[in-house]
Amino acid sequence: MIPFKALIIIDKTVATPLYLQIANSIIQNIRQGHLRRGLKLPGARVLAAELNVHRKTLQMALDELLAQGWLEIEARKGTFVAKALPEMKAVKFGSSQSPLVYPEKAGFQIRKVNFRSYSFTNFQTDKNLIITEGFPDIRLAPIQELMREMRSIERIKSFRKYFHYGNPQGTAYLREPLSSFLNETRGLPISPENIIITNGAQMGLYLTANLLLTKGDHVVVGEPGYFTATLTLERAGGVINRVKVDENGIDVDAIEAICKKKRIRLVYVIPHHHLPTTVTLTPERRMRLLNLAAKYKFAIIEDDYDYDFHYDSSPMLPMASLDTHGNVIYIGTLTKTLVPAIRIGFVVAPRNFIEEVTQMRRSIEFQGDTLMEISIAGLYKNGVIANHIKKSVRIYRERRDNFCNLLQNKLEDLVSFQIPEGGMCVWVRFNEGNLPVIAASAYKKGLTMSDGSSYNEKVNYNATRMGFSSLNLNEQEKAVDILKSAMSS
Amino acid sequence: MIPFKALIIIDKTVATPLYLQIANSIIQNIRQGHLRRGLKLPGARVLAAELNVHRKTLQMALDELLAQGWLEIEARKGTFVAKALPEMKAVKFGSSQSPLVYPEKAGFQIRKVNFRSYSFTNFQTDKNLIITEGFPDIRLAPIQELMREMRSIERIKSFRKYFHYGNPQGTAYLREPLSSFLNETRGLPISPENIIITNGAQMGLYLTANLLLTKGDHVVVGEPGYFTATLTLERAGGVINRVKVDENGIDVDAIEAICKKKRIRLVYVIPHHHLPTTVTLTPERRMRLLNLAAKYKFAIIEDDYDYDFHYDSSPMLPMASLDTHGNVIYIGTLTKTLVPAIRIGFVVAPRNFIEEVTQMRRSIEFQGDTLMEISIAGLYKNGVIANHIKKSVRIYRERRDNFCNLLQNKLEDLVSFQIPEGGMCVWVRFNEGNLPVIAASAYKKGLTMSDGSSYNEKVNYNATRMGFSSLNLNEQEKAVDILKSAMSS
Repeated sequence: MIPFKALIIIDKTVATPLYLQIANSIIQNIRQGHLRRGLKLPGARVLAAELNVHRKTLQMALDELLAQGWLEIEARKGTFVAKALPEMKAVKFGSSQSPLVYPEKAGFQIRKVNFRSYSFTNFQTDKNLIITEGFPDIRLAPIQELMREMRSIERIKSFRKYFHYGNPQGTAYLREPLSSFLNETRGLPISPENIIITNGAQMGLYLTANLLLTKGDHVVVGEPGYFTATLTLERAGGVINRVKVDENGIDVDAIEAICKKKRIRLVYVIPHHHLPTTVTLTPERRMRLLNLAAKYKFAIIEDDYDYDFHYDSSPMLPMASLDTHGNVIYIGTLTKTLVPAIRIGFVVAPRNFIEEVTQMRRSIEFQGDTLMEISIAGLYKNGVIANHIKKSVRIYRERRDNFCNLLQNKLEDLVSFQIPEGGMCVWVRFNEGNLPVIAASAYKKGLTMSDGSSYNEKVNYNATRMGFSSLNLNEQEKAVDILKSAMSS
Repeated sequence: MIPFKALIIIDKTVATPLYLQIANSIIQNIRQGHLRRGLKLPGARVLAAELNVHRKTLQMALDELLAQGWLEIEARKGTFVAKALPEMKAVKFGSSQSPLVYPEKAGFQIRKVNFRSYSFTNFQTDKNLIITEGFPDIRLAPIQELMREMRSIERIKSFRKYFHYGNPQGTAYLREPLSSFLNETRGLPISPENIIITNGAQMGLYLTANLLLTKGDHVVVGEPGYFTATLTLERAGGVINRVKVDENGIDVDAIEAICKKKRIRLVYVIPHHHLPTTVTLTPERRMRLLNLAAKYKFAIIEDDYDYDFHYDSSPMLPMASLDTHGNVIYIGTLTKTLVPAIRIGFVVAPRNFIEEVTQMRRSIEFQGDTLMEISIAGLYKNGVIANHIKKSVRIYRERRDNFCNLLQNKLEDLVSFQIPEGGMCVWVRFNEGNLPVIAASAYKKGLTMSDGSSYNEKVNYNATRMGFSSLNLNEQEKAVDILKSAMSS
């Protein structure tokens, strides 16, 4: 006799109805080979008694299994496990091959992705002060205003349609004010058709790289450079050509020299505040790079992720606003302007390119985050974003100056750096000590910082970016004190 | 004398400060070749008068340009356009090469994406009744409850951390209740590590396909099948093998025959309610397919996007819950359960596969929509989702029955269909008439429906899916009346 009581597992504390638990457990046992095809089940009354459930409950379970085709009734003979099911070898209880134990490993071959990029995963739980890279101070963000906009989608009847399927290019309701904003603030004479809303700058980069590159296409990036971008371009098939970045930005002579030898498909630049060194590309190099692009017909990705934050003059017009030949693909984001969790970014480019980017986005996800798009559109329209940028620039300028003073006064000759004209980080070179050791020691003392290992796998700059924007003046002092103590230990 | 008044465009109605407008306009003119390198500018007083702005405003503009490096001062000689800038050929005003006109087309070669998939783009503006595919009735969705959860992220202090960078696998705060929910409702004995939250089911499919497939890998899909999935698999490099879907689901004998001839990497199935025909894969075929997967070590993508909606019995346990060898990659979504604009989907698989999927997701975007994830977690925890599913199933069952009755009574022999056991659509074959013509006529009369052309490029089924879930009983009657009138015209 089959030990149904042992086989069929019932848990009266969970929300799943009893009859379904019984039905599902019987299915699992069929799959495990404990209840074989053609097996005659005991009568409902007997089985109900054995499982200590009401007979009606048991009958519902049997009906369910009959409806699904796991069991079948033969007239005047009884209820059987369906004979058409395949023969199963019985597996041991609790073995890794039991359906009650989820498989530990995949039963097919797995390819490694090796996207070895920077992880911010622990930022939510890290109780340390954090100066890894630069990110906005979430305490300053206009969250209440954002939530008010979010609620309006429910409250305003004409907004209800936005709960429906939307446009993978991003809703026009956001692209319209964004296009005006970019025109007024960055001199981009664009229309909403030139914009696609992406999930942060990274998606803009991913889409662009994967659309432009096929295996073996030559790409130029700065050295040192933004490792995540390089990795993204590489994974999209690009062959990476590294060009030195000096105090005037990426070396355009070197790019020209490469163009004379190879067919270059794409140049990736961060002209406003180069990552990692924060330098700004000079006007003459900008214009020469644009001229080169027009001559050799390559695309320029202009990554301008922290446009808003420039402290000693107004932000510099992007190269895209000087592009007369349609070579520049301009990538921006609100992630640094508001809070990291708001993943609204954008790509600006000639319309025929944006159309293809939109199709590629559609292949990854049907649409972006419409509800957030509508809310952000509201914040543009009522001036909240413009005001927030003004306020942030004022506060971050003070924080930059204070942080640089602290580095200067407390660490003196231990480090060297240039005061950055913009952005959220200082590029700090360590004149003494080994940065990974210092970072590990600082972490234990309450300060989380990058160990600088990710800027290049082969070259050790013994330097890292330190973010000054998310810590207030007191926190900055504590952070630099910890760093000093980590360096002397 | 240079006509500065004509060159420098100022618009006092826009928000950009005047001095910045002047500065940017001068930069544009340098780029256009109208103000050449080495050109001496008139004195600030003269230029201010010509442009009819305050002298201080003009001085601010010049300071800005000096700071950025576009201009330079030579002691006792005056202010010049920087000599280091490259020589530019002057372009005509208003020409497509003027930076004041955004380039119409890209200056580099563009690859076509040709993701010819279904577009839902117009659903937000379409005033017609819509029966294209099946989608939830947004009037039933628990939007107020969702907004309450969303607001709690701002209100509850311990939630503030979620504004920070998060985990590309999706926040554990959602994966935990989701894992319990899937365990209780679908018999999936998983833990949160077996889940990645994606942007809808499509991202799950994209990630999985691109992770599993390299160019030339053999893939099996059903015929007729879900065109968007086939396209996604194809674009990821898969060679598509089409296998007939009959009234019992995909033909497993045919899959076995292929396995004997070729190395199959992946089988894509929608066992619960096949798209488009809505049939359910029988238990014996499920078990045989699982056995084949274990034997030939291929992966099964089980797309279960409308799991919740099964009307004549409880939803069938997914194949994933019977998978003892780790072959099944299970894809689900809340898009059909709540509203299309909420793009929360998930993939369930053995942990070593989910780890790679997470890295690949990170390469596309740093993280998903954390704020929505937290809100949805709240709706799981307080039972709103479970209740909403119960309510929807009740209403949609009535709508299914009513819609099928209307088709039967009003269209009689013009169409044939099976009453679907679940999902949101009926697969309707047109016995007479040409579906694209009928659909075009219906559209003009106020009914938007698919013309059936997308299920296969080569085979004309003269059939389409009609969604019954989003229209109430009155609307359904109107819709079928329009359809009838379109068929007789």
